[in-house]
Amino acid sequence: MSGVASGDQGPWLSPYDLDYVRERVPMVYVEAIPVRLSPDGDLEAVGMLLRATAENGLQRSFVSGRVLFHENLREALLRHIEKDLGSMAFPRLPHTPVPLTVAQYFPTPGYGFHDPRQHSVSLVYPIPLGGDPQPSDDALDFSWFEPEHCHDPALQAEMVDGHAQLLCLLLNTTGNYA
Amino acid sequence: MSGVASGDQGPWLSPYDLDYVRERVPMVYVEAIPVRLSPDGDLEAVGMLLRATAENGLQRSFVSGRVLFHENLREALLRHIEKDLGSMAFPRLPHTPVPLTVAQYFPTPGYGFHDPRQHSVSLVYPIPLGGDPQPSDDALDFSWFEPEHCHDPALQAEMVDGHAQLLCLLLNTTGNYA
Amino acid sequence: MSGVASGDQGPWLSPYDLDYVRERVPMVYVEAIPVRLSPDGDLEAVGMLLRATAENGLQRSFVSGRVLFHENLREALLRHIEKDLGSMAFPRLPHTPVPLTVAQYFPTPGYGFHDPRQHSVSLVYPIPLGGDPQPSDDALDFSWFEPEHCHDPALQAEMVDGHAQLLCLLLNTTGNYA
Amino acid sequence: MSGVASGDQGPWLSPYDLDYVRERVPMVYVEAIPVRLSPDGDLEAVGMLLRATAENGLQRSFVSGRVLFHENLREALLRHIEKDLGSMAFPRLPHTPVPLTVAQYFPTPGYGFHDPRQHSVSLVYPIPLGGDPQPSDDALDFSWFEPEHCHDPALQAEMVDGHAQLLCLLLNTTGNYA
Repeated sequence: MSGVASGDQGPWLSPYDLDYVRERVPMVYVEAIPVRLSPDGDLEAVGMLLRATAENGLQRSFVSGRVLFHENLREALLRHIEKDLGSMAFPRLPHTPVPLTVAQYFPTPGYGFHDPRQHSVSLVYPIPLGGDPQPSDDALDFSWFEPEHCHDPALQAEMVDGHAQLLCLLLNTTGNYA
Repeated sequence: MSGVASGDQGPWLSPYDLDYVRERVPMVYVEAIPVRLSPDGDLEAVGMLLRATAENGLQRSFVSGRVLFHENLREALLRHIEKDLGSMAFPRLPHTPVPLTVAQYFPTPGYGFHDPRQHSVSLVYPIPLGGDPQPSDDALDFSWFEPEHCHDPALQAEMVDGHAQLLCLLLNTTGNYA
Repeated sequence: MSGVASGDQGPWLSPYDLDYVRERVPMVYVEAIPVRLSPDGDLEAVGMLLRATAENGLQRSFVSGRVLFHENLREALLRHIEKDLGSMAFPRLPHTPVPLTVAQYFPTPGYGFHDPRQHSVSLVYPIPLGGDPQPSDDALDFSWFEPEHCHDPALQAEMVDGHAQLLCLLLNTTGNYA
Repeated sequence: MSGVASGDQGPWLSPYDLDYVRERVPMVYVEAIPVRLSPDGDLEAVGMLLRATAENGLQRSFVSGRVLFHENLREALLRHIEKDLGSMAFPRLPHTPVPLTVAQYFPTPGYGFHDPRQHSVSLVYPIPLGGDPQPSDDALDFSWFEPEHCHDPALQAEMVDGHAQLLCLLLNTTGNYA
């Protein structure tokens, strides 16, 4: 956050303010795809969180969250990774702000990816983890999936909208075409 | 905009709403660096707008503007290019949302690039123009600069904060090291 | 080629020399994925050549070819596009040498992509065509495929090794997830 | 190398063969820019080797070397980093083959970057080092330079042709504009 206050209230928003803002502008998001690499840089596994949905279903997803006022992109990535995966995940942040892709989520079904809560513009980064992620916060589980399982339709069906496509992009980008 | 309304008021914000939002969240921006390419893809020239500042100075800049609620990135690029460069500029939009870089502007001097109005996360795209840009709106002029002039300190001093660095990045990226 | 001779023999190699070199070093290749974009930058279609194979089969592929001694990457792209698609294809070359991906073809099955002729390191670029491609040289046909047909297993089975994966990468990169 | 022999002679070339090949085709190279990152991903320092030139001068450069027949890009990066920086450098290889840029070196002065020995197409990767690099082989020294020293004209004058531009590109890409 760089120790900079945003007016009186700081960068956190009240539920009222968050609703107000979400109806008026796109929200800036970062998404971290947790990856485990071999010493040679081979993609060994991709990590996903498992959460319960409001409808008593289960849903898998990468780490994802809002960028706060006056927070830079790496601060936001670090904060969300620590919140979701604990302090022993040891993420290796990218040295460049250029993302793997920019995912666009819209509240109206049929436009890009779907997020019923908001319009968000999400900068997506694969993040190698050097440590031991522990699901914290509201997640039920964190699991590693080997690349060859990633094309499993049953797995893809469990993922939040858009994340199966991000996973395919990552696998194609790494040259891992299993 | 894809014909989708945002509640009652549409995606445009009143000055009050814009101030309210700007104090609470980072704003999503797109920036287009107008470029003229030879048929072989060589960078021939980089285009900049000239505007008068509130302090009676002059300032050069690329095309830059806010992404509206429910607008996608290419719609925002097209809208701002047409607003600033007219309808005969014939921009060639990128086929991918991955930007050249992500520029981060903060209202506090000393953090990243400086924008006294707001915190913005700006996706920067070089955009080849196939037509004839005509400065519209509030600009005084639009000029093409050959790559070898781009390192001119006098020119760089006229540019808005951050744009000289974006120009250097573009020149290095194209392999144009003049 | 920039008009620069390579010793006595120019950049073209005799069959003997080409065999000699291919057994000793990886060959530098460029590959152009022909794409047709809408004015808004949407991916409308992807182009492929159809050729007869030595075994009387048929095979689809993108434009692909060797970079000659003292030829730069854009010269090689232009030369191969003109040779395969004629002089009216009007390709729009990229302003940067950074490729979509680097495809690695090996003569030994099971290592990366397979090319029985050689080890090649191939820089892959999506190339928008502004004109009318006409298959020349040794091709039987050039066809445009809409993105939604690109995942057709029958189409993928007709493509040379690696090109189905390049196609998936392109579709994921453009945000076209049909 | 994947344990695959290239005919009788393996991937290494005799001086005669190397000369023969270099006169006929571009050589595939990889270049590693050693970087030291903070835990937050900030670029702290860039590493360069110091070598004596044939003319009794001194020259700084990044790690650079040829890709052998049947060697993949990451194997080549690992091999050259270990040869030049020892076995305790602990490089973190990239998970994607997409390079920061593609540098083109030509034997004729005035075309791209200059390398009197050959035409090479060089895939350039910033490589974070997690360990302690020790210059081995033929180097006199390995030093870390803080980003703010990288624009020093005296330093740039000591670098091999092209590497000062690669350094500028890296600094601009990281958002480090010191």
